[in-house]
Amino acid sequence: MRNEQIQILIVSLKRLLRRGATRQLINIINKTHMADLSIVFKELSSLNREKLFQLISDPEQIGILFSKLDESIFLEFVKTVEFEQLVVIFDHMPSDDAAELLGLLEEELSDRILAKMQKEESDNVEQLMSYGDDTAGSLMVTDFIALEEDVTAKQVIESLQNKYLDVEMPFYIYVIDDYGNLVGVSSLRQLVVVHPDKPLKEFMATDLVSVKTYTDREEVARLVSRYDYLAVPVVDDDNRILGIVTVDDVIDILHEAATEDMLKMAGVGDEYVETQTIIKGTRIRLPWLFASCLGGVAAFFIIGGFEDSLVKFTGLAAFIPVIMGMGGNIGTQSSTIVVRGIAMGRINIQDFSKVVSKELAVGLILGVTYGTFIGLVAKFAYAGEPFSWALSVSVGLAILVSMSVAALVGSAVPLIFERLHIDPAVATGPFVTTSIDIVSVYCYFMIAKLLLGL
Amino acid sequence: MRNEQIQILIVSLKRLLRRGATRQLINIINKTHMADLSIVFKELSSLNREKLFQLISDPEQIGILFSKLDESIFLEFVKTVEFEQLVVIFDHMPSDDAAELLGLLEEELSDRILAKMQKEESDNVEQLMSYGDDTAGSLMVTDFIALEEDVTAKQVIESLQNKYLDVEMPFYIYVIDDYGNLVGVSSLRQLVVVHPDKPLKEFMATDLVSVKTYTDREEVARLVSRYDYLAVPVVDDDNRILGIVTVDDVIDILHEAATEDMLKMAGVGDEYVETQTIIKGTRIRLPWLFASCLGGVAAFFIIGGFEDSLVKFTGLAAFIPVIMGMGGNIGTQSSTIVVRGIAMGRINIQDFSKVVSKELAVGLILGVTYGTFIGLVAKFAYAGEPFSWALSVSVGLAILVSMSVAALVGSAVPLIFERLHIDPAVATGPFVTTSIDIVSVYCYFMIAKLLLGL
Repeated sequence: MRNEQIQILIVSLKRLLRRGATRQLINIINKTHMADLSIVFKELSSLNREKLFQLISDPEQIGILFSKLDESIFLEFVKTVEFEQLVVIFDHMPSDDAAELLGLLEEELSDRILAKMQKEESDNVEQLMSYGDDTAGSLMVTDFIALEEDVTAKQVIESLQNKYLDVEMPFYIYVIDDYGNLVGVSSLRQLVVVHPDKPLKEFMATDLVSVKTYTDREEVARLVSRYDYLAVPVVDDDNRILGIVTVDDVIDILHEAATEDMLKMAGVGDEYVETQTIIKGTRIRLPWLFASCLGGVAAFFIIGGFEDSLVKFTGLAAFIPVIMGMGGNIGTQSSTIVVRGIAMGRINIQDFSKVVSKELAVGLILGVTYGTFIGLVAKFAYAGEPFSWALSVSVGLAILVSMSVAALVGSAVPLIFERLHIDPAVATGPFVTTSIDIVSVYCYFMIAKLLLGL
Repeated sequence: MRNEQIQILIVSLKRLLRRGATRQLINIINKTHMADLSIVFKELSSLNREKLFQLISDPEQIGILFSKLDESIFLEFVKTVEFEQLVVIFDHMPSDDAAELLGLLEEELSDRILAKMQKEESDNVEQLMSYGDDTAGSLMVTDFIALEEDVTAKQVIESLQNKYLDVEMPFYIYVIDDYGNLVGVSSLRQLVVVHPDKPLKEFMATDLVSVKTYTDREEVARLVSRYDYLAVPVVDDDNRILGIVTVDDVIDILHEAATEDMLKMAGVGDEYVETQTIIKGTRIRLPWLFASCLGGVAAFFIIGGFEDSLVKFTGLAAFIPVIMGMGGNIGTQSSTIVVRGIAMGRINIQDFSKVVSKELAVGLILGVTYGTFIGLVAKFAYAGEPFSWALSVSVGLAILVSMSVAALVGSAVPLIFERLHIDPAVATGPFVTTSIDIVSVYCYFMIAKLLLGL
């Protein structure tokens, strides 16, 4: 459904909710994909939201809806569902979704639900919940197809029709040896093409890529995206297959990863904030702004230290914004390039000197360009004064220093953070802007003081 | 292959290239996925790059490599390949990749290649090239499976083994009626599960989502990601199926879309710049910085207009950085949230007043918080002076105004651009930072002048 269609759906649902037209509402719900309903819910008042949610009765559908909802709305709905019903819903969910959602609940509630779920299902889910949050293990589904090397194409198709009827993504058939080690892979497509009596070992591909349970999820996403896979097997340290990560989960990661980085760099948390309350949005943004506030206060004291120079020539103050702005902006450019390059796996720590020296070169060229331009503005603004050339050179030099330092700091800091295993997207923003502010202002006044003899 | 493994591969390749160990090099190439080689090429000197590339002989592999390479390296390699060989390579490529890559070549060369390609293949490619760059049409592959309603499961499997052997993604079987209209879809999985004699119309799903050739590619990506599809059919206005867009292309779009936004917001172009030359990187970044430079020059003239006030109290200058910094940073936060929300389809133009008023509320709360804090810093810094309270209130008020205006402008501007069909990610950055700089500085000096009687 397109966004326009969803807007129309929202309008009709609101009208029907006002009229209390339950039967029509149920009708619409049954015809609407839960992925679309999850968007609708964001736009409804919490009262309407609850009313509409009460009308969904199929536990499997509710499970799909839960996995698509924003965290806050999911938690709101969970409260309104009876405990017995919750157990049924989680029993029907794919184990990876169940593990993720149960992880969002209070521990006491999730423990009670797990205790009541079907044993096999809850074992799977608990296993998944035991892997770290950002790992392949937490993402994988445990229903996959693994058969031994001697099984023939015909037998594989038969087992697809019986044993593996429930498998979510039956596109790859993984092949294991007598010790349970993953040795190859075949696809549904190959199966229908080869002679029915051929055993898997004769037509399977053996150059397969697998990940460990503890592989970082963004690494998994990169592999799937690089090789255009539909799924990637997850193995333990003995190369025994435990599950698979499917392309739909990878899409979600990729969809969110870059956005997260962007939000983190701006210091607004790591998820979408349009559905958050004003108070929560404020709280998330406060710390990042505090760093920039400290930088500003530091700049205040630096400028205070040059008060004598300012008294002699107040015009100096007028160039503060342009010097800080040019430094800040080129610094943001450099750090954006590097943060994103690291996240995409296109820049490594080994590239440090190459990346930083290139950014520095760009900073120098742009610094000379804009330094000259703004220096000339200064020259003409004070054309009649005897010190106009000295001022022009001071301002130009300050721009050059500010822009080159900013490019250097902006590109080096994310790489250093990455090296120290600190998330560059979170840490870079405040650190870079604050340090650039301080350095720019200090250098500007020092240069001006020296060249103008203030 | 992990990044560490690729680094090791690069080291050994460099060593073998130095030694001229052709046979070993060819051996490694044959065992390495072209997706990995494409990363290796980025790290080699252009001489080594060319040497290594010469050793790849299989046209199909070269085609895969071409589709994975950065644009600049692809264009470099194309020059070294003989024309006849180029034709063979493009003949072997999936038509969507061929269309995309031919679009990067000079028109004269791509026309010559198309003229020499196999008729059927070049017709497909030319058709694809005729759709707009960012549309579903330009993304789709034209080999898909479409069968009529009466075909039985068994017959479908037979035709997969004969007629459709070459189809890239045979996971969905599209069903058409006697007029060629798309009426349903079935999956390879269903086929092996149902009775062999059942016709498609009895087990196909009829609630299928399709897109038009002119649907925007990011819209396509959103649909595939929302419904967890592996492919989505592309139809013309008469609902006749022309091709499919597969999940691997969607991954690439999603992988790039958010990154593009991030780079565009920082004014560094819309693709990765690590592989660009210093000159090109500089040229791309120049215009965005020019906007911020103009803002700085405007701020210079504004402050110049308040020179009398500054002469009376030079301490005023020391607060310029913190006032501009706080405004600039909260403005960036607001615009990042809104730009990303628009791109993800989570914020619409209809939400204008809701989004903007919420950001304004956050701006006011944070403005009061930091205004109070920095106001108190001002009070204590000038504790002995009779005007210290007036200064404190001026600075605090200026922070409040600057931060609220910034939140307002930062959230409203991207929505206004979106409304005017201007890419918010490109236009927002320079516009928002420049206008916030100007407004902050002006309001600060006006408030100080009034309250301090300067």
